[in-house]
Amino acid sequence: MESAVGDTEEGAGDRSRDAVAFIYNSAVAVPAISAAWELGILDALSASGSLDIDEFAAAHRLDRTATHGLFRALAAVDIVERAGTTAVPAANFAEVCRNRSFFHWLARGNADLLRTTAHVLREENRTGAFYQRDSAAISVACREISALTYDPWFRQALDDLDFTPRAVADLGCGSGERVLQLLRRFPGARGVGIDIARPAVEMTRSEAERAGLADRLSVVEADARALRPRPELADVELLTCFMMGHDFWPRDSCVRHLRNLREVFPAVRRFLIGDATRTDPKADRELPVFTLGFEFAHDLMGTYIPTASDWSSVFPEAGWRLVKTHSIDVAVGEVIFELERL
Amino acid sequence: MESAVGDTEEGAGDRSRDAVAFIYNSAVAVPAISAAWELGILDALSASGSLDIDEFAAAHRLDRTATHGLFRALAAVDIVERAGTTAVPAANFAEVCRNRSFFHWLARGNADLLRTTAHVLREENRTGAFYQRDSAAISVACREISALTYDPWFRQALDDLDFTPRAVADLGCGSGERVLQLLRRFPGARGVGIDIARPAVEMTRSEAERAGLADRLSVVEADARALRPRPELADVELLTCFMMGHDFWPRDSCVRHLRNLREVFPAVRRFLIGDATRTDPKADRELPVFTLGFEFAHDLMGTYIPTASDWSSVFPEAGWRLVKTHSIDVAVGEVIFELERL
Ligand SMILES: C[S@@+](CC[C@H](N)C(=O)[O-])C[C@H]1O[C@@H](n2cnc3c(N)ncnc32)[C@H](O)[C@@H]1O
Ligand SMILES: C[S@@+](CC[C@H](N)C(=O)[O-])C[C@H]1O[C@@H](n2cnc3c(N)ncnc32)[C@H](O)[C@@H]1O
Repeated sequence: MESAVGDTEEGAGDRSRDAVAFIYNSAVAVPAISAAWELGILDALSASGSLDIDEFAAAHRLDRTATHGLFRALAAVDIVERAGTTAVPAANFAEVCRNRSFFHWLARGNADLLRTTAHVLREENRTGAFYQRDSAAISVACREISALTYDPWFRQALDDLDFTPRAVADLGCGSGERVLQLLRRFPGARGVGIDIARPAVEMTRSEAERAGLADRLSVVEADARALRPRPELADVELLTCFMMGHDFWPRDSCVRHLRNLREVFPAVRRFLIGDATRTDPKADRELPVFTLGFEFAHDLMGTYIPTASDWSSVFPEAGWRLVKTHSIDVAVGEVIFELERL
Repeated sequence: MESAVGDTEEGAGDRSRDAVAFIYNSAVAVPAISAAWELGILDALSASGSLDIDEFAAAHRLDRTATHGLFRALAAVDIVERAGTTAVPAANFAEVCRNRSFFHWLARGNADLLRTTAHVLREENRTGAFYQRDSAAISVACREISALTYDPWFRQALDDLDFTPRAVADLGCGSGERVLQLLRRFPGARGVGIDIARPAVEMTRSEAERAGLADRLSVVEADARALRPRPELADVELLTCFMMGHDFWPRDSCVRHLRNLREVFPAVRRFLIGDATRTDPKADRELPVFTLGFEFAHDLMGTYIPTASDWSSVFPEAGWRLVKTHSIDVAVGEVIFELERL
């Protein structure tokens, strides 16, 4: 790609040949970015500014040839530079590191969905469980995505509470990070984590063990759209739901689900919904990291992404008062709604 | 990406932000390219120069929203341009179409291998069946890859034969295309297709049915590295083996396998091996379409890719005389070796 930049003698054919090679090589590099994060390569390079590939492979018991291949894939799109067995950060390194969770979300979490694009597009196939995603990888990615997007506003919303909850619950608890944060923040509170995906439930349980908070937390494998009243939910005063609220939609079912949550959590004093929302479409060729992947994946799955005003229009009908809206919009129109019972 | 080209006022931060967004969006676009080929979108756009997305979706019973998403993914990296519901080819369209089989090989055939890069790199995991690929998708891709690379030289090699084979066999028959070509070319010959992968065996059988050639072909599910003498192989005079010969390596086992083929096919008069070979490494940032994907995938799998001279050094020892070498080198050092019994 670089060779095309500012080179006026190159013809259109050469330019598109370079561009298409860059597109191809990017598709090889993106899973390499995700693996480099998971294997600690991005952290090691950030920390030391340079790394011997052979030494890293030996120290981490990685296959030497395949590890060189991974660094070559990163080098092909200017994330690292190689000289002999040494790798150093290159022009795109810092920006890739900042965005690694979005890359992981795509390359690990949604690889299978994208692989089956042709199958998923056909109407005849769009029934039952017509796609697969890696919910453990998505949970890991979302933990860091949340830190990049919602967390400062989330903390502000907690600071602003005028009560100390006796019990908290998190819907779609994913990695467990949010409900564990709440337990640390409110040392007197019990917590409940609820997720529909077994890997997320297991991850929440093991992270709670690791954090020494398991005795204050119960983790439930359940669909947040089909909860029934149960004792451990009856005294929850703070309810949170991040990066899954769009699953309540379309509108009719969203009203129904939010009403049901009002019944299932009768003691709730504050309900925080944080989610990406649909914004005005950007020009096709000016899409930042994440937007295209997030929106295409939900198009493939047939999941409607509401706008912020879709959301605010639904609350009164569902028995909730909108107390405050935090418009974050770092990646794809993130919003946090602060609600209380109407 | 475009916005970075020739824009000298833009800072390094903006440039890498645009570049990293382009890398991300490429990873979304590449599975969309593969799906667009499979669904006939690339052909329809090439043929008519413009296409109404809604009409195409309706005519092919595709989900409307997801189809728009697919076109948006293509538009993000300048393969098509959208205006309302109309799509037309953009700057990278022609080059992407030319290379669609390499994209398909990567995005469908090797998606699962790349998704599990971190797992595959760890030495402790590299035993047994430690990766998965889609051999049906690879067969479909390789049929067109062969047309772009080996086929003209392959036809030349057939033209140069000084005999008309009574029976032919193809090792690693994939889609079945090659052995069917041979049956058409030699109407008096019987054929045998051999492949280790069930989906390839099934595809070869059904393609032979479709072509009305099934009565002259037997298809065998077997490992070409472990064949035993059997009646239908005894009179094969022309043996071919394309895009799988590297699986015979490393050197010691290659000698053994080629020797065994000499025993198993006692009547062979010409043996054509066509394969990609390792060439001098290109600069990391000047890798054309395919090279990086092909070499990284084989690094991940731990498959050694021999050089052309690795190959030629092995033949005499294995009982074969190298009659002619066709150096093709269109994508990744393709070569065809013409061999006869020593
Ligand atoms: C994108 S992740 C976000 C995880 C976490 N809330 C966070 O903020 O990092 C969405 C999570 O919601 C879960 N989920 C999706 N639909 C759900 C439903 N109907 N009921 C319960 N959990 C659900 C998924 O399994 C996944 O773990
Ligand atoms: C890359 S494809 C090429 C297909 C075909 N030869 C062509 O020219 O288009 C390689 C094929 O070889 C098959 N294959 C790989 N190793 C094999 C082995 N040891 N024995 C038989 N077939 C093998 C694979 O299943 C796959 O169908």
